[in-house]
Amino acid sequence: MRKVCVVITARASYSRIKTVLTAINTHPDLELQLIVTGSILLEKYGSVINQIENDGFKVTASLYTIYEGNNPVVAVKTTASAMSELATWFDAIKPDVVVTIADRFETLATAVAASYMNIPLVHIQGGEITGNIDEKVRHSITKLADIHFVACENARTRVIRMGENSDNVYNTGCPSIDIAAGILKNQLPGFNPFRLYGGVGSVFNHRKPYIVVMQHPVTTEYGFAKEQIECTLNAIQILKIPTFWFWPNPDPGTNETAKGIRSFREINKTFPIRFFKNMESAHFLMLLKNASCLIGNSSVGIRECSFLGVPVVNIGSRQAGRDRASNVLDVDYDVAAITNAIAYQLAHGHYKPDFIYGNGDSGQKIAALLTTVPLCSHKTMTY
Amino acid sequence: MRKVCVVITARASYSRIKTVLTAINTHPDLELQLIVTGSILLEKYGSVINQIENDGFKVTASLYTIYEGNNPVVAVKTTASAMSELATWFDAIKPDVVVTIADRFETLATAVAASYMNIPLVHIQGGEITGNIDEKVRHSITKLADIHFVACENARTRVIRMGENSDNVYNTGCPSIDIAAGILKNQLPGFNPFRLYGGVGSVFNHRKPYIVVMQHPVTTEYGFAKEQIECTLNAIQILKIPTFWFWPNPDPGTNETAKGIRSFREINKTFPIRFFKNMESAHFLMLLKNASCLIGNSSVGIRECSFLGVPVVNIGSRQAGRDRASNVLDVDYDVAAITNAIAYQLAHGHYKPDFIYGNGDSGQKIAALLTTVPLCSHKTMTY
Amino acid sequence: MRKVCVVITARASYSRIKTVLTAINTHPDLELQLIVTGSILLEKYGSVINQIENDGFKVTASLYTIYEGNNPVVAVKTTASAMSELATWFDAIKPDVVVTIADRFETLATAVAASYMNIPLVHIQGGEITGNIDEKVRHSITKLADIHFVACENARTRVIRMGENSDNVYNTGCPSIDIAAGILKNQLPGFNPFRLYGGVGSVFNHRKPYIVVMQHPVTTEYGFAKEQIECTLNAIQILKIPTFWFWPNPDPGTNETAKGIRSFREINKTFPIRFFKNMESAHFLMLLKNASCLIGNSSVGIRECSFLGVPVVNIGSRQAGRDRASNVLDVDYDVAAITNAIAYQLAHGHYKPDFIYGNGDSGQKIAALLTTVPLCSHKTMTY
Amino acid sequence: MRKVCVVITARASYSRIKTVLTAINTHPDLELQLIVTGSILLEKYGSVINQIENDGFKVTASLYTIYEGNNPVVAVKTTASAMSELATWFDAIKPDVVVTIADRFETLATAVAASYMNIPLVHIQGGEITGNIDEKVRHSITKLADIHFVACENARTRVIRMGENSDNVYNTGCPSIDIAAGILKNQLPGFNPFRLYGGVGSVFNHRKPYIVVMQHPVTTEYGFAKEQIECTLNAIQILKIPTFWFWPNPDPGTNETAKGIRSFREINKTFPIRFFKNMESAHFLMLLKNASCLIGNSSVGIRECSFLGVPVVNIGSRQAGRDRASNVLDVDYDVAAITNAIAYQLAHGHYKPDFIYGNGDSGQKIAALLTTVPLCSHKTMTY
Repeated sequence: MRKVCVVITARASYSRIKTVLTAINTHPDLELQLIVTGSILLEKYGSVINQIENDGFKVTASLYTIYEGNNPVVAVKTTASAMSELATWFDAIKPDVVVTIADRFETLATAVAASYMNIPLVHIQGGEITGNIDEKVRHSITKLADIHFVACENARTRVIRMGENSDNVYNTGCPSIDIAAGILKNQLPGFNPFRLYGGVGSVFNHRKPYIVVMQHPVTTEYGFAKEQIECTLNAIQILKIPTFWFWPNPDPGTNETAKGIRSFREINKTFPIRFFKNMESAHFLMLLKNASCLIGNSSVGIRECSFLGVPVVNIGSRQAGRDRASNVLDVDYDVAAITNAIAYQLAHGHYKPDFIYGNGDSGQKIAALLTTVPLCSHKTMTY
Repeated sequence: MRKVCVVITARASYSRIKTVLTAINTHPDLELQLIVTGSILLEKYGSVINQIENDGFKVTASLYTIYEGNNPVVAVKTTASAMSELATWFDAIKPDVVVTIADRFETLATAVAASYMNIPLVHIQGGEITGNIDEKVRHSITKLADIHFVACENARTRVIRMGENSDNVYNTGCPSIDIAAGILKNQLPGFNPFRLYGGVGSVFNHRKPYIVVMQHPVTTEYGFAKEQIECTLNAIQILKIPTFWFWPNPDPGTNETAKGIRSFREINKTFPIRFFKNMESAHFLMLLKNASCLIGNSSVGIRECSFLGVPVVNIGSRQAGRDRASNVLDVDYDVAAITNAIAYQLAHGHYKPDFIYGNGDSGQKIAALLTTVPLCSHKTMTY
Repeated sequence: MRKVCVVITARASYSRIKTVLTAINTHPDLELQLIVTGSILLEKYGSVINQIENDGFKVTASLYTIYEGNNPVVAVKTTASAMSELATWFDAIKPDVVVTIADRFETLATAVAASYMNIPLVHIQGGEITGNIDEKVRHSITKLADIHFVACENARTRVIRMGENSDNVYNTGCPSIDIAAGILKNQLPGFNPFRLYGGVGSVFNHRKPYIVVMQHPVTTEYGFAKEQIECTLNAIQILKIPTFWFWPNPDPGTNETAKGIRSFREINKTFPIRFFKNMESAHFLMLLKNASCLIGNSSVGIRECSFLGVPVVNIGSRQAGRDRASNVLDVDYDVAAITNAIAYQLAHGHYKPDFIYGNGDSGQKIAALLTTVPLCSHKTMTY
Repeated sequence: MRKVCVVITARASYSRIKTVLTAINTHPDLELQLIVTGSILLEKYGSVINQIENDGFKVTASLYTIYEGNNPVVAVKTTASAMSELATWFDAIKPDVVVTIADRFETLATAVAASYMNIPLVHIQGGEITGNIDEKVRHSITKLADIHFVACENARTRVIRMGENSDNVYNTGCPSIDIAAGILKNQLPGFNPFRLYGGVGSVFNHRKPYIVVMQHPVTTEYGFAKEQIECTLNAIQILKIPTFWFWPNPDPGTNETAKGIRSFREINKTFPIRFFKNMESAHFLMLLKNASCLIGNSSVGIRECSFLGVPVVNIGSRQAGRDRASNVLDVDYDVAAITNAIAYQLAHGHYKPDFIYGNGDSGQKIAALLTTVPLCSHKTMTY
């Protein structure tokens, strides 16, 4: 029975990994050790820990690690703090394998702690290309990780080209697609976002066409976060289409993004826009599935929306380099360009599903591999 | 005038980088910001900080970061501690570029702090291959670094293959060769290691043939450190050749290594062996230059000795994968194999110089590049 | 020339200590080393660091130390983080004496770092009695401190009774009174809080009678913060008198307090209430000087208002045990009691000045003492 | 059933508290949560954790917290590190009451973490007087603690005079006496320290008269540690009486103390002196019981030896101010004074038992109180 320790540091990672957690939890040969940290614990970001426990997962350890300040200095300190605490806990619970997800800055803490402690490290979703600090973090984790569960073929090729042994690189698809696949089976007929989540702002008819906006600050451009969000807000204002808007991640720049949004609200009090902090992934994907278009820079546009066929207007550099299906239209921070792209997507309507990020069984695949892959914390370059 | 912040965490790194520091310090367009941490500050490891200040360098900040325990848990905590402190200091002194050296576990702290704070990061001596945790650390730093000053052509090729832009990868040679080159010019005729450094153990005639031993614990094999050192001790005992022996690095396993050495001493009180904690590099290289053979697993055998033509018996996996000249004979942890290899090298005598790690102007090259390379903290994979 | 290192961790401490800083800065025998940390650096709490620099003080070091979470766990971690960073900086700047102020939880970090490093420690404002965790912190600091600058005679008696040598306990008065004294001399005739600070909420005529509210969560009762603030809000609502309201400190419970305030605002959009994050102390005291009454639990009601003669309704336990003049009326968390007390104070009008906390030369006194008191970091109990 | 969390940071504290742990462990109404940290985990200090587990106690958490350096800077960092880790663990295991012991610098971490987290804090052995930094730490902890279990009447009086409510101050005696009392019942007839503990140095007949030395560096005088130990070594050398010598605590100065001892050994290779790192308390007390005299500055001389009637020569300031029985002779760091005092005690022989520190039931008393004392984490000064 292998003890699998999964470390989750943010709402988005939890949503993405959820079917993996379920598959581990129900697998007879695996024991789940779940460590939550980062914004998962903070009320300000929706106390995701409550959702995790309501979903039936037992939390092994909750670690407060985030420094206030929302700037690069505290990003380092937050990472260091997580690293130090994780070392203590890995030593206490002695996992057979540690799993880290994607590329948020603080996830490097998990990778360093596990690899320095000679615990085999699995990295989910390495090998992708984006346009910010995550880029450095992601590939740096690849070089610390022993086993790679990548989400698409290009990612697999890239991880191997970086010198990883191809025997240790598996294309499992992206587990976020699993939930999207679940949504197609269960359409949640009575789903009402206003009733379920409240939110702040105007009320409108969610059965009529609407768009969804999800735009995060870009770490390497965090001084421009306010201007960047204002482009999107202006485009929305011009198009006057009802909008569900999600609050940004707690990355450097998030305060500026929030300011831009607040100013807009003060001036446009009757605009049909509704703000949410977060939603359970199933509900969020349902909302997305029925949306006319997704606007912003979330990876959801690249991944889940390719499978769901939802039209996407992807703004700026945050997802640059990620493999994408034909549903995505890329634009720069420019009011006219954003407005035109949204108009084009509204006219086009939904796309056919594309399976580049998997077909919905990623969680099962990963759990199966976790029981069988040879575990080793020592590796050498292939060249 | 660029502010260049160099972070040094161990005696070996200081020795290696010294000519770079001098070249930065004397360059009219560069300002040196020197941060020392790790074992540099500890009396137990020879208070290298005193040597640094005696060498005329001004220390900007001294950071205590090492946790006691000598095991993988505290290796993580030490790294985290350095990371957090470095963030504060980078914020206070605002360097234009940060320089990190080689691949000790705690150097990742420098790389993370600089890259997360969007400060351009130079990595010296990436792209090499060895056989331990350093391997993961080194390549992980490569993926965080913006500019790479590598020590040999193979390293350059490897860094580029990992997806780094070739415009940012420079073969500067290894600055450790600079000091070796200096030694050839200045043979220190009256050099007497006993008089200069004292040391512990027997006294013998250093003008007659002797060997030098420098063997560190291997991080990924730290449970075997005692047995590994005993192989070498037994070989020495068989050959009965006078020996200068250097204490190991403070890596996990160092206590075991030290125990092995102490037991040997208790039993072989009259054996012609002399122990030193450390020496100034010039003195150390002089001692090496005149040695019949170097035994152990130090990178000095691979680098400086290739240039100096000193015969080397390299034991075990620590330097596995490093490019080497013909002066190096590789053996496993095996008393007979080690004994035979030493005998072979003693019979062979010195080798012709080989310039695979540079020809003595690496410090100058690096300082010159630091004034001219475009500085950027944002990069993308080349594939 | 003595190097005096003052550590400031929060807006309130800065306001209180400002005349001391000025007196140190202008004293020929003292050199000020100013370290700022805690909420001083955070935009969320008004980026007090900008105000400090605008006031002409040079900041020696800025240390990010606050963990997000607003609960007792992170209060410990924030304190630990400050402690560790301060040790590094005390070691770097080698102060002759360290000054810590009052009793916020994180100030214990300053006291521990200085005393453990054998640096003489001055504590300003020990010996007072209040009703929360500050109580433990304050007296604990007294037992670590070498020299005590207390604010009133009762405090002096109490510090001595705790076993401190009376030679090291000086009643300097409270430096916060210095600024209040300055206000009496310079009445700032054109002062307009709306124009100077913006704020949020309604606009009303600040030349007509108004009250000021400043109510912080009580650390030991932080689960009740929302109900506690609602009592005050209800009383204000009943009295309908124009109100200037200041946001609470970042103590555990502050989120609950903020929630209570936000709910009130959503329902009472036209109520004549104006919210401010903070003000320069001179402006704040001017606002207070002209107020009909101060409501809440701030120590300003006890100290500055005794000198200014401003009527105060002090709610709950936060100031329990502090020596007070006749201008203070104490009430419990009870809407009727609060309402009646405010009504009483409005009817009574201003009080005569009382000098229990000094008469305005505290900063000068402290600076003078700092040049002359014998410095020692070793003490013994008097019994 | 109350969950009692005891935090142990050093060998001496474990020895002292052992009967309390046993009494808690066997009490039906108490659940023991044992956290070990500091030097308990380090091989260098005898891996006391192994002894703890061999004694049948289950360790809840092991926390690495000690920074290398052995100086005041790292004393602060070690304390901060413990504080931060303890916060995480108190949050995880939610004790009803936390117990901290005595006054080593890092124990303040336990006190701060518990009190800031509103967990009732018991302090064992407050109210005593000594002459070093422990003095500040001890009384500072008293002001953070809610319940005080003191070891003698004078200590009780002192804690109450410091403003603690007498209802919360209990004279339980010192649990270290419990083990001494056990020794009187079980004289371990075949006890042979050489056979049981090995040690380093000469062998001599332990059934003939011998003395025991236990001398720690004094934190506030740590620059003088080498000279101080040399006084004692010289006196021993003059008297030529066989000596069992125990290594010092890991306090600042310990390296200097160790150096002094090593130099002595190199020069006096045949002197009848045997060095031990540590012993189980029962064995140590047996050795002490049969000793002609104890020399040094350990509190064992003041406490256990008063009960056992062993003559003591107490050197320097470390125990200054502690209540003592007639068996203790105080001297300064002076070779002649030490020599004379030892000669006097050897001539005098053993003393009659004195019960100022209790009569052997302290562990039982403390466990009984832990089940019944009202638990509260909120207190006010009595004056």
